[in-house]
Parts: sequence; structure tokens; C-alpha cells
Amino acid sequence: MSPAFDPGRLAGRIAAGEPLALARGISHVENESDGFEALLERLDGRTGRARRIGITGPPGAGKSTLTAALTRHYLNQSLKVGIVAVDPTSPFTGGALLGDRIRMGELSTEPGVFIRSMASRGSLGGLATATREAADLMDAAGYDRVILETLGVGQAELDIAVSADTTAVVLVPESGDGVQAMKAGLMEVADLFVINKSDRPGADRLEKEIAIIMSIRFANRPPGDADGDADEVWRMPIMQTVASEARGIEEFAEHLDRHFDWLRSTEKLETHRQTARLRRAHDALLRRSRRDAQRIWRRASRETLDSGASPYATARRLYEEFRKTLGGT
Amino acid sequence: MSPAFDPGRLAGRIAAGEPLALARGISHVENESDGFEALLERLDGRTGRARRIGITGPPGAGKSTLTAALTRHYLNQSLKVGIVAVDPTSPFTGGALLGDRIRMGELSTEPGVFIRSMASRGSLGGLATATREAADLMDAAGYDRVILETLGVGQAELDIAVSADTTAVVLVPESGDGVQAMKAGLMEVADLFVINKSDRPGADRLEKEIAIIMSIRFANRPPGDADGDADEVWRMPIMQTVASEARGIEEFAEHLDRHFDWLRSTEKLETHRQTARLRRAHDALLRRSRRDAQRIWRRASRETLDSGASPYATARRLYEEFRKTLGGT
Repeated sequence: MSPAFDPGRLAGRIAAGEPLALARGISHVENESDGFEALLERLDGRTGRARRIGITGPPGAGKSTLTAALTRHYLNQSLKVGIVAVDPTSPFTGGALLGDRIRMGELSTEPGVFIRSMASRGSLGGLATATREAADLMDAAGYDRVILETLGVGQAELDIAVSADTTAVVLVPESGDGVQAMKAGLMEVADLFVINKSDRPGADRLEKEIAIIMSIRFANRPPGDADGDADEVWRMPIMQTVASEARGIEEFAEHLDRHFDWLRSTEKLETHRQTARLRRAHDALLRRSRRDAQRIWRRASRETLDSGASPYATARRLYEEFRKTLGGT
Repeated sequence: MSPAFDPGRLAGRIAAGEPLALARGISHVENESDGFEALLERLDGRTGRARRIGITGPPGAGKSTLTAALTRHYLNQSLKVGIVAVDPTSPFTGGALLGDRIRMGELSTEPGVFIRSMASRGSLGGLATATREAADLMDAAGYDRVILETLGVGQAELDIAVSADTTAVVLVPESGDGVQAMKAGLMEVADLFVINKSDRPGADRLEKEIAIIMSIRFANRPPGDADGDADEVWRMPIMQTVASEARGIEEFAEHLDRHFDWLRSTEKLETHRQTARLRRAHDALLRRSRRDAQRIWRRASRETLDSGASPYATARRLYEEFRKTLGGT
């Protein structure tokens, strides 16, 4: 079967920074269209330049507003920004109130900004994988910063957050969100904490709560790494913002830069990027086997499926077919 | 390799209703221990008796308290209740404040109640699949009701909710949760809506909001099915509870029973169960191929992984090995 598109040509157009080509490329990856892997492979050598920033947190924390404010900050520095939104409650993906969506709409018409929302349901099986690859394409297209906005709940979503170079966890002062959120696995993914909507009561209290929890965490760590180098330890900033008024955004961007510099200086960046490449290969291998299994499933006869056998016997029988098909080609 | 346990013996003990055997069985499924599929297969003929109830909604909606109250109601009717909690913010899984956890702890010591939390991170790849199979084991162990408590955000989590016979979406009066939640895909999975903490202001307003959204939805539907039978249409209840005081729980249970009766009377239950069996076979097939691919990945040589080839070329090369291994056995 001939591919649905010409991967070489599309790769060239993406590398040249054509937004329409980038949009098409991401769709091909998301849909796993014939040739999508050839596209990714051709652009592989062009990735690794962008800094990837994960912004995650509970619903209503203002992740999108923070993303928008950070994007404006980068635009003022003449940096190009790609945004991948996988948060079902995000205005980028259509989950917000009208006012929010209009504000985001303004951003989407800015030159130098590319916004893409990924479907969090109905994906072919690899939301986190496809999201990372969408970020790869933005990287290859020359975007200097790629922001991954994801909801901080759910397995696939947290997987996305941790794939960024730097992950910011966004919380709000209300209702003991801090402790609750920590328990939901957000603490493990955070490189820095942002208390957004900090003009509301409770921001200082929450900051103290987080600091206490962090100090308990640090207490269990050695003061330096194995070589006794204190620079090896990242002291996690906890900061306050009012993203809707762009308050604290400059400081936020500074902390992100500081973290990136720290990653680079400790060679953690290189390790991180190498791990990411291995992860890509791992995911691509699993995707290949899944696609083959799905092909067999689609071809399965009604008789096999309706045989009355247990689901596990049916799967075993289909898998035998799968093996035979593979062996015979 | 000999299996890590004797599937036949464990199946017998689970079928006899031994809680410790059930706990071990679920762990084997979750860890995909050698022999786990044989265990599922042996118990396959004993499933289908339990009614499965999904309880989902945003964080803080009181899903666990509602689950606990419903469980007490069933216990009073001498029904055995299995609970699978996959919500990272649930007190069942350790995400709640101390007081909540103590209340849940009381429930866990009741005879006739079996509580199991599933790890929402770090699972081998099939959280939704393993959760459905944990419910199968509870079903086979003689639990009359199996409640699946999941957070109503994230792909894997919503997949779990829709696998129940009846899915209740729980919301709270505050902060326009209703409309927000609807947009996050909760509306598509709901068979009934519960407005919990309805003693707080805004419950009636939220109920009206949902009713309006639902009426728009129903307006796009024919008044009956193809045969013109109005019974084919499920009129979705919207109800109010204060779960912490067990208010509205009896009505909640009645609505669940009504929905189950409706499923049965329209033969939708049978369709649903058949679809579920197909889904099991599909998932088991994909799991087999994933496990093989992971085996190849673990065996992959350092040279292949460090070759400097693109991740996609590496995956292709490993997949060729995978095919050869399969063809040769």
C-alpha cells in the first residue's frame, strides 16, 4: 500500500517551519497514517533543540492561563512557542468557558505560536507516545519552547508531564489542594511548584505546607550526590503567580531557565535526552506489535469471535494466527 | 518456567469465596504473574452474576463517601460488595485525609465487603484491563455488587467507568462543575447523575443546568428506538445526595436497580455483556503481543540500543528479531 502522504516532502516542509505542514504531520502521527514513522525518522536528526516544559496540575488550577502568560513572555523574547494541550478541561482543547477560549484564540493567531490539542479519548492507544512525538515535530519545526499542558491526574497524563525537561506543578490556594495533589503523584513529577491565583487567601499557607512536605523529602536525601557535589541536588522552587494578570511570570520563566541550566551543567540533560530516545524506541516497538495485533483482530472471523470460547482462549487462538502471519512473511 | 502459583487451586479457592485467595488472584492479574491468564480462564464461567456499578466524577465530589454509603445500604440488604478503587485521590487508595481513611477502614473490616485499590501509575500497561479483570474475579468470588470507583478524568479512568453496567457521574454544587465536567467527557459515560453534598448552595441550579443540557441531548434523539418502543430510551435521572449523612442513598440504589432492570428488559444487558467479552479477548490479544514485545526489549543488546540509529530504526530492527523469535517457535 502506498503511503497516505510523501514523508520526505512533508518532513522538508515541517523542517522549513511551515505551520500547515506541521499540523498535517501531527495528524498523521496521531492517526498512525501509513508513513507516519518514516516522517518521524526523517525529522529525528532535527530534534533536541527545543526546551520542553510540562505544566500540570488539578482541574481549575489555571494551567492554560499560565501557559498563555508564559507564551506571551517568550514571544516578547522573540522565541517561538509550541503548545501541546492534552487536558480535557483546557480551553485549548475546548473544555473551558467562552471567555477563556476567546483569550486562547487571540494567542493562536500570533505568529510564532503553534497550538495543538491532542484527543485524550479515542486515541489509538498511545496518547502519551503521540504527544511526545507531536512535541518532536514542533521541535524539528524550529519552536524554541514546547509547552506540554496536561491534567495532573491519570496515568497517561502524568506520563506526558514527566517526559518534559522541566515539569511545573500548578496548584491553587483553595481547599487543601496541596496535600491532596501531592498524594495524587504530582509531587513525584514536580521540578518546581507554582501557586497560581495567589491573590486569593491561603497562598502563603499552601506555600508553607509544600515547603514542609519538601523538607521532609529532602531530609531523606544526602546533602550532595555520590561525589559530594551539592550542585547535584535541585532545590525545588515554590513560587506564586497570578497568571491572569501576568504576575510572577518573569520569575516563573527564570526558574525554568535555571532548572534547564542545572540540567545541562550536571549532565542530567544528556541522560534525560538519551532516556527519551530509548523510550521512543521502546514505544515504537510496542506500537508495531500493537498495530499487528489490531490488524489480526480486525481480520478475525465472526466464527472465532462468537465461538463461545472464553475470551482468553479466543485471544490465544488469534495470537497463534498472528504468529503464523509474522512467521510467513 | 513453572507458574508462580497453581491457577486451578487458586481458582477453586476464589470460587469458594476466600478473601485472601481473591486478594492474591488480583495481585497475580495486576502483576501478570505466570499463570494469571489460566486463572482468569478457569473463572470465566463463573462471571456475569454481579452487577457492576461505575462511580466517577471530578476530584472532591465525594465518590468514596458515596461508594461507602451505597455499600452500607447493600450490606443491610445482605448483599456482598466488592469495591475496586482506581482514583488516586480516593481514601480507598490512600489519597485522602486521615478522617476519611478511618471511615473507609471501618468498612474494610466488614464481612461481605472486599476493597481493592489498583495502582494508577506503574501498571504494566493495562490499568483498565486489569481493573476489569479484578472485577471479574470479585464477580466469580460471589460478590453481588462490584463498584468501580474511578476519577472522571483521564483516558484509562473513563475507559473503566464505561465498562460497568451502570455508570453514575457524581458532581458537587460548587463552581460550575457541571458544565465543566460535562465537557470533559463525563456526560458521554453517564447513566445517571448524582449531585452530592447537595446541602450546599447551588445544588438545584446545577440540577437545572444538567436537565437543560440533557434535554438538548434528548432533543436530538428519536422519541423511541427503531421499533418505536419508548421503553428503549433511558430517561437519565438527576438526583441529589448528602452521602456523608446517607441522605438520598436509598433513592440512588433504586435508580441503579431501575437502570439494571431496564438494561435487562431491553436486552441491552446481553449486548453489553457480549461486547464486554469481546473486549476481554481484544485486550488479552493486545496484552500477549505487548508482553512479547517487552520480552524482546528486555533482551535487546546494549549495542542495538546504543547504536546511534534513530529510535524508529532501532524499533524496526528489534521488531524483526521479534518476528524471527515468533516464527521460530
